[in-house]
Amino acid sequence: MTDTPSPLVTDPAARARILAAVRFDMRGLVPAIAQQHDTGEVLMMAWMNEAALDETLATGRACYYSRSRGGLWRKGETSGQHQEVRDLRLDCDGDTILLLVHQHGVACHTGRRSCFYLAPREGELSEIMAPLISPERLYGA
Amino acid sequence: MTDTPSPLVTDPAARARILAAVRFDMRGLVPAIAQQHDTGEVLMMAWMNEAALDETLATGRACYYSRSRGGLWRKGETSGQHQEVRDLRLDCDGDTILLLVHQHGVACHTGRRSCFYLAPREGELSEIMAPLISPERLYGA
Repeated sequence: MTDTPSPLVTDPAARARILAAVRFDMRGLVPAIAQQHDTGEVLMMAWMNEAALDETLATGRACYYSRSRGGLWRKGETSGQHQEVRDLRLDCDGDTILLLVHQHGVACHTGRRSCFYLAPREGELSEIMAPLISPERLYGA
Repeated sequence: MTDTPSPLVTDPAARARILAAVRFDMRGLVPAIAQQHDTGEVLMMAWMNEAALDETLATGRACYYSRSRGGLWRKGETSGQHQEVRDLRLDCDGDTILLLVHQHGVACHTGRRSCFYLAPREGELSEIMAPLISPERLYGA
């Protein structure tokens, strides 16, 4: 397992053609699902704008668009929990992206491996997954 | 493998509590990812409103909201390719749903098992999955 991701598409013109096939929404965003490439675990869903998708394709490292911060979100830049992108899929109508990643550490800001840790159990939403690391260790006190 | 799905949450009051935990967007919608429960294959991403999620929890059969038709979309109602929902997850910030389903037949309207069949190969988006059934057989000529 290498720490240095490979770019998915090195040629900027090729990246531009791929970006042109994506149907970004009115805000200029497209949902991107991240899935661990070998186990199939769905880790998180976030958003990308054109620049985030272009950077992801160019670097092989997942870059999203943070709606709260209004800027690029290089996953793991603060927490160290980055995602190497092994492959990328676009869906039939071009409006959703699936990233097949190698997740270093945990995907969720709560310290859980996946963000999808709530499930109905006996009629209540229950936490079915424990944190692997404390948010304090991820982001500092 | 049974053809009759089990409801996930039978009690309407419990369903209302779960719905209250979901952060629907300004349009009243939340993205829902469908994943084959045993293989981990990500099949599709669609949208749910409150009524669609309530029906999904009550029936154990995936019901989405069709943005193009502006109404409930009971997956498989026309095509027969329905989804038994085996479990449901909500993510950390309550704004994305993950359905673990048993997909009967194919998820994609193109006749492919999954909607995520386009991938960059040598700088071009290529179809990496073949249809298993023709759209004509799914929807009639």
